[in-house]
Amino acid sequence: MALFPIAVVVGSFRKDSFNASLAAALEKLFPADFSFIQVRIDDLPLYNQDDDANPCAQVRRLKAEIVGAKGVLFFTPEYNRSIPGVLKNALDHASRPYGQSVWNGKPAGVLGVSVSPVGTATAQQHLRNILAYLNMPTLGQPEVFIHHKDGLYDAHGNIGDASQKFLQGWVDAYVAWVKKHA
Amino acid sequence: MALFPIAVVVGSFRKDSFNASLAAALEKLFPADFSFIQVRIDDLPLYNQDDDANPCAQVRRLKAEIVGAKGVLFFTPEYNRSIPGVLKNALDHASRPYGQSVWNGKPAGVLGVSVSPVGTATAQQHLRNILAYLNMPTLGQPEVFIHHKDGLYDAHGNIGDASQKFLQGWVDAYVAWVKKHA
Amino acid sequence: MALFPIAVVVGSFRKDSFNASLAAALEKLFPADFSFIQVRIDDLPLYNQDDDANPCAQVRRLKAEIVGAKGVLFFTPEYNRSIPGVLKNALDHASRPYGQSVWNGKPAGVLGVSVSPVGTATAQQHLRNILAYLNMPTLGQPEVFIHHKDGLYDAHGNIGDASQKFLQGWVDAYVAWVKKHA
Amino acid sequence: MALFPIAVVVGSFRKDSFNASLAAALEKLFPADFSFIQVRIDDLPLYNQDDDANPCAQVRRLKAEIVGAKGVLFFTPEYNRSIPGVLKNALDHASRPYGQSVWNGKPAGVLGVSVSPVGTATAQQHLRNILAYLNMPTLGQPEVFIHHKDGLYDAHGNIGDASQKFLQGWVDAYVAWVKKHA
Repeated sequence: MALFPIAVVVGSFRKDSFNASLAAALEKLFPADFSFIQVRIDDLPLYNQDDDANPCAQVRRLKAEIVGAKGVLFFTPEYNRSIPGVLKNALDHASRPYGQSVWNGKPAGVLGVSVSPVGTATAQQHLRNILAYLNMPTLGQPEVFIHHKDGLYDAHGNIGDASQKFLQGWVDAYVAWVKKHA
Repeated sequence: MALFPIAVVVGSFRKDSFNASLAAALEKLFPADFSFIQVRIDDLPLYNQDDDANPCAQVRRLKAEIVGAKGVLFFTPEYNRSIPGVLKNALDHASRPYGQSVWNGKPAGVLGVSVSPVGTATAQQHLRNILAYLNMPTLGQPEVFIHHKDGLYDAHGNIGDASQKFLQGWVDAYVAWVKKHA
Repeated sequence: MALFPIAVVVGSFRKDSFNASLAAALEKLFPADFSFIQVRIDDLPLYNQDDDANPCAQVRRLKAEIVGAKGVLFFTPEYNRSIPGVLKNALDHASRPYGQSVWNGKPAGVLGVSVSPVGTATAQQHLRNILAYLNMPTLGQPEVFIHHKDGLYDAHGNIGDASQKFLQGWVDAYVAWVKKHA
Repeated sequence: MALFPIAVVVGSFRKDSFNASLAAALEKLFPADFSFIQVRIDDLPLYNQDDDANPCAQVRRLKAEIVGAKGVLFFTPEYNRSIPGVLKNALDHASRPYGQSVWNGKPAGVLGVSVSPVGTATAQQHLRNILAYLNMPTLGQPEVFIHHKDGLYDAHGNIGDASQKFLQGWVDAYVAWVKKHA
C-alpha cells in the first residue's frame, strides 16, 4: 500500500526524452511505500489569466494530481539556459488563481539529464528560484546534473553501475526529505 | 518609410494586459523611422523537439516575423519570480532547431509592468540570462520596472507625466542601441 | 536557557545599516528559547584558497560560531542586483576547505531591507541559489523584501505597527522551520 | 602603440590559479592593437559604504585602471554556484559612490575555467546579471566554460590545439565587440 504518492513532472515531450527515461529508471530505486503519478503536461493550454475562473479539464486534472501527491519530482532539460517554457507553463497553471496554488508545501526534488557536459545546472538554478517562491521545500544536496552517455542505463533500462550508487544516495536523501516535510 | 521594424513580444494574453497597454503606449514615443510588429504567441503549440523537422504554420510565422525585425522588445509580467511559461515557450520555438535560432544578434529591450512594488525585477533577471545565451545584445540601463498605478497613462492612453521623461529616455537609449547593433 | 542559538549574518558594515537595525528589531519577536549570535564578518580577509590549510583566527571564529548555531539568518542589502561581495566572502570562507563546509544542513532565513521599492528581491534570488548549493534548507514563504521608510520602527526601535503582524508571522514560520530541521 | 587597453580581472588569488593561467594564455591570441592591464583586487578592503567619501589608495587605483580601459575581461572561478566574494567585492567598490560607477559602458567578456565538468556556468549566470545592471555590454556568444584538463596548454603555456580554434574565435568576436562599443 503506497503511503507516499509522488508526482513526476518531466519537462520534455520528446518521444525518446532523456529525462523521461531517467524518471522511469529512478523510480525503481525507491522503497515500496512510494508510488508515482506521471503528470501529463503536454495537453495543457497556454496559460491565460482570463481563464482562472473557469479552468479547463486538463488544468483541473493537473491540480488534482498535485493535491494528491506527498512530493513532486521535476526532471528538466535545459533550453536556452533556463527551464523549458512547457514546464514553466505547468508550474504557472497549478499556481493559480492567486492564493490557490497547489504546489504550496510539497517537498520537491530537482533532476536533469543532458547531452551537454554543462548538464542542466543553469536551468536548475532558475527552477530553484521558482520553487522557493512556490514555497516548496527543495532538496539541496546532492545536485543531479546527469550527463547522458553510454552506460547510463543497463540492458534492462535500469540505472547502470557508474551512476547507481550516486542516484541511490539521492533517492535515500529525497525519501527522508519527503518524510520530514509530509 | 520604416527602416527599423521592431518585433514586440508581450508575455501575457490577458485581455486587459498591463504589459500590452504599456507596449501600445511606449510605441508612440519612438521616432518615425521605427515601426512595430505585434508578434502573436498565444496560438503557438507547446514546444516539442520532435516537431523540429516539420514546424507548424504558427511557428513558421513567428520565426519569419523575428527574421524581419531589426530588434525585439520584450514586455514581461512576472509569474512565480520568473518569466511566464508562455513567453519562454515562444523563445524556445524560435530558437530551434539547434543552430537555426532566429533571435541571434537581434538587439533586445526588456520591460515589465506589475501591480507589485517589486515590479518584474526577478523575472527580468531570468530573461536576461536567456537573452545572453540567445546572443541578443540587450540594453542594460535604464532598467524598466514599472509599477502599475493611477496616472501611469493619461486619458488618451499615452504615458502620463510621471513616467514620460523616464520612458522617453529609455526609448532614446534603445533607439541608439538598435542602430549600433543593426 | 537558550536551546536554539541562531547565527545572524548582516551583509552591510555601514554604521547605520538598515539591515543591522532590522536584525536587532526582529530578534525581539522570537520566543524565549531562541538566542542570537551576531556573526562578525567585517574583519575577515579576502578569501584565498591557498590559506585553506592554515585559516586565520577570524575564519576559525566564523566557522566555530556557525557550527554552534541551530540556524542562520541572513540580512542582505542588494548591491548591483546581487548580494554584497562581503557577504559572499563570508559564505565562501565558511564553506571551505572542500568537504568541510559548516553551513551544511543549517536551516536558513533570508531577509532584506532597502530604500528601493524593488527591495532586495534580486539579491535574494542569487542568495537562495547559493544556500541551496550549501545544502541549507531555506524558508520559502513568506518572502521578506522590506522597504525602508518612516514608520518601519517605533520610537523604541521595535518593529512598527505597519509591519509587525507580517514580520511576527515570518518569525513564527522560521521558528517552526528551525525546529523541523534541527 | 596600444589603442585598446583591456582591464583583466581574475576572481581567484590562488598562486596557481587556473583562471590566471587562462588569462595569460588568452592575451596572446589578441591582435597587436590590444594591450592588457592586470587589475589587482587582492589588496582591496572589504567594501563599506561609510568609506565612500574617502576611498583608500587601492580603491582609487582600481577605479583609475577601469577608467583607462576600453573593455574588461572577467575570468571567474565558481564558488558555491556563484562568483567569488572577492570578485563581487571589487565590482562593488568600483561601482560606488552611487552614480559614479566606472564600469558604465565598458564592453565586457566573461570566461571561466574549472576542474568541474559543469564548468563555471552558474557563476557566469549571476555575473551576467550584475554586469547588465552595471550597464556593461557583455558578449553573449560563444560562452566560455573551460574544463581544466591535460592538454589545455602546450609546453609553452599557450592554448593547446584542442581549444585553440574555439578560443581564437572567441577573441575575434570580443575584439569586434570592443570596437563596436568603444
